[in-house]
Amino acid sequence: MLSEFSLIDRFFARRAAARPSDAASGSLGIGDDCALLAPPEGEMLAISTDMLVEGRHFFPDIDPEALGHKALAVNLSDLAAMGAQPLAFTLAFALPKADETWLAAFSEGLFALAERYGCELIGGDTTGGPLNLCITVFGSVPPQAALRRDTARPGDDIWISGTLGDARAGLGIQRGEWSADASDAATFRRALERPEPRVALGLALRGIAHAALDLSDGLAGDLLHILERSNVRATVNVDAVPRSAALRRLPPDIQRRCTLAGGDDYELCFTAPATARASVEAAGREVDVSVTRIGTISALQAAERPAIGWRDAAGAPLTLTLQGFDHFHAD
Amino acid sequence: MLSEFSLIDRFFARRAAARPSDAASGSLGIGDDCALLAPPEGEMLAISTDMLVEGRHFFPDIDPEALGHKALAVNLSDLAAMGAQPLAFTLAFALPKADETWLAAFSEGLFALAERYGCELIGGDTTGGPLNLCITVFGSVPPQAALRRDTARPGDDIWISGTLGDARAGLGIQRGEWSADASDAATFRRALERPEPRVALGLALRGIAHAALDLSDGLAGDLLHILERSNVRATVNVDAVPRSAALRRLPPDIQRRCTLAGGDDYELCFTAPATARASVEAAGREVDVSVTRIGTISALQAAERPAIGWRDAAGAPLTLTLQGFDHFHAD
Repeated sequence: MLSEFSLIDRFFARRAAARPSDAASGSLGIGDDCALLAPPEGEMLAISTDMLVEGRHFFPDIDPEALGHKALAVNLSDLAAMGAQPLAFTLAFALPKADETWLAAFSEGLFALAERYGCELIGGDTTGGPLNLCITVFGSVPPQAALRRDTARPGDDIWISGTLGDARAGLGIQRGEWSADASDAATFRRALERPEPRVALGLALRGIAHAALDLSDGLAGDLLHILERSNVRATVNVDAVPRSAALRRLPPDIQRRCTLAGGDDYELCFTAPATARASVEAAGREVDVSVTRIGTISALQAAERPAIGWRDAAGAPLTLTLQGFDHFHAD
Repeated sequence: MLSEFSLIDRFFARRAAARPSDAASGSLGIGDDCALLAPPEGEMLAISTDMLVEGRHFFPDIDPEALGHKALAVNLSDLAAMGAQPLAFTLAFALPKADETWLAAFSEGLFALAERYGCELIGGDTTGGPLNLCITVFGSVPPQAALRRDTARPGDDIWISGTLGDARAGLGIQRGEWSADASDAATFRRALERPEPRVALGLALRGIAHAALDLSDGLAGDLLHILERSNVRATVNVDAVPRSAALRRLPPDIQRRCTLAGGDDYELCFTAPATARASVEAAGREVDVSVTRIGTISALQAAERPAIGWRDAAGAPLTLTLQGFDHFHAD
């Protein structure tokens, strides 16, 4: 556990070891064979794991401080999508070499976000090898309050937090697919490298939203996960999908591609009954995150499969050929 | 979550999805943003994570079925060392390509062990990239029964399960450092590739052992973790350290190197009061695992640091220069 390089002890174990090594308090922490953790009385642990690989999930030249942020942010985003309160995480990583400057910046980005969400490092593993980061994150949620994927119901509105597409726009600029002025390019790059997990919104939506997930692979593919698990269809107004002022300055076809089939958005997509519109909007205001209605859920008719019907602002059907986010490479 | 390649869905998600997707039953399972898991009433989750990298933790030509076994075994071994009952695990991995034959064999080795210990796959992540396996494992243990590292007491005996050194002997043969006849070489290779986690022994030692850990980096280095966390010293009879008949056929200096500074043993090293000798032996018999007393714990005298005093069978002090297991490469 975090003991193989003294540099790593210095940057990680020390900050992790700040927590009490007393099982009764909730966690044994770093330095034993296992960490001990229990959810609060009546709640369950929500658990998610993500692996990030250089060249696939981030560019080799990424600022290591941004990488530290993003590696934890994408995991916290999974907790947000369950309506779970962050508690703790483990970090396993392979590094080609123990580079002090790199580790200092990476750990700074990681712990700055962890501390903001009260999410403590309770264990890990480090080894040499091609750069690879694997975080497993733990949150707590009362099981009946968990925001699942299989609970969307006909008549629900479909909502999106924040705006979509900026991260994909940033990836396109780094790849040379399109360009933007320096200020917009910085906006897109920030969205790509420093997503903000919607933890507070996920908590505020407990008891209001029916189904939820976080958008990591693009709206078109991710919303389909809710539809398939809930056995329903969706109708989405593509012109209602929220986008930033910067994205609105790119050509319309690129806007659509970035918002509908982009990825790395880490915004929440959720459904809620039409009677809860005021409550959803109040939840968004309470946590200072915009929420936008983009469509509705409907029941499957005979022989229909779960699918998304795309419409323009006038309600006319659109035929879109969209693929999910390809994480830098086509599979 | 396990959805990026259809081959992976086929080999992993299907077997994982066999579990009920009902939060009330204990786990939401694969297919949502998070798995939901809670320990039984009054217990805590014991959590450990390990990352295995090709060329560092296993040879590129390892049988993938053995790799599937070992990747989970080393994690279950951490649960064993806490006296925890296995419950579940997550699997994240990077693969250079989705090779059907490889995945079939790997998943076979993984699930055969998982099913033997009732440990279910509840989530994961898959991506392309240099071969890397990261498992996070979850067990349950009443906090007061957990076998920690910081609870060794002066007067305790030091015990070892099974035998030590065979895995290091197998590594030496693969590296061409020494040789053995085909039968002994097969014994060593099996120890290296298919360690058996001492889960049943860990459970049987609840309430009997004071401190415990699993031996992954060699006795000399690992026992020191107990001493440092418990602030005590140890005296160990090097001739009492248990070894297999096959290892006894290698030269004495290699036997010593393999048993004391080898690695990948995944046996338990634990301490227990001298009054508990009969109970320890009964626990070993109950689970059919040999247990051997190799030394004693003593209090630190003024200005002493936690350390191991090595003795031969006659009680004469030995000066040994030992390094922990280097996981195939020197750091």
